[in-house]
Amino acid sequence: MTTQQQLALERCRPLRGSEHLLDLVQCAALLAGLPGWQLVGETVLQKEFTFASYAATLLFVNAVAGLAERENHHPDLAVGYGRVTVSYSTHDVGGLSRNDFVCAAKIEALTQF
Amino acid sequence: MTTQQQLALERCRPLRGSEHLLDLVQCAALLAGLPGWQLVGETVLQKEFTFASYAATLLFVNAVAGLAERENHHPDLAVGYGRVTVSYSTHDVGGLSRNDFVCAAKIEALTQF
Repeated sequence: MTTQQQLALERCRPLRGSEHLLDLVQCAALLAGLPGWQLVGETVLQKEFTFASYAATLLFVNAVAGLAERENHHPDLAVGYGRVTVSYSTHDVGGLSRNDFVCAAKIEALTQF
Repeated sequence: MTTQQQLALERCRPLRGSEHLLDLVQCAALLAGLPGWQLVGETVLQKEFTFASYAATLLFVNAVAGLAERENHHPDLAVGYGRVTVSYSTHDVGGLSRNDFVCAAKIEALTQF
């Protein structure tokens, strides 16, 4: 099983203080399993997705939003015509937590269907 | 009838060249009827909307997206938890057209119901 598949099967965990803040080495290891995702400013995990139509764009937005509600972990979404930039960060820890990578992996899994 | 109501009843018009590019005086006159909307860099018409829940946030996103498809004029949306920033611009004219203000007025009308 790949790192991405393992992450995608996890659920987001409740945060307690800063125990889940990841350092850059940990982030890099998880990032290696997520094609197209990048770190922005060491505190944001981001990827741009493109779509052939606005309808497809909105279907993706709603799928991501449903995931966000279920996991109680909500990304920032920049939505344009045929493109969505997804940005995850865990404000409670002041940077990136494993939850951000779990959600990114779940989105990758979603886009494979 | 207010400027906002008049604008909200219009439909977006197809663009032909740059004839619909508005100057700042024209923009200011239309902006006066749109509470909370502001000009950003003279080429973007923007407003941030806030919501009590993520579900309400997504309902707004989908309502705006439906409007965008019907009018064939699509804003940029920055979507977070309980907030959406809507940005209109008309790339074909290199700035703001009347269509941007028509769509903003339609959104104002939507949010009154």
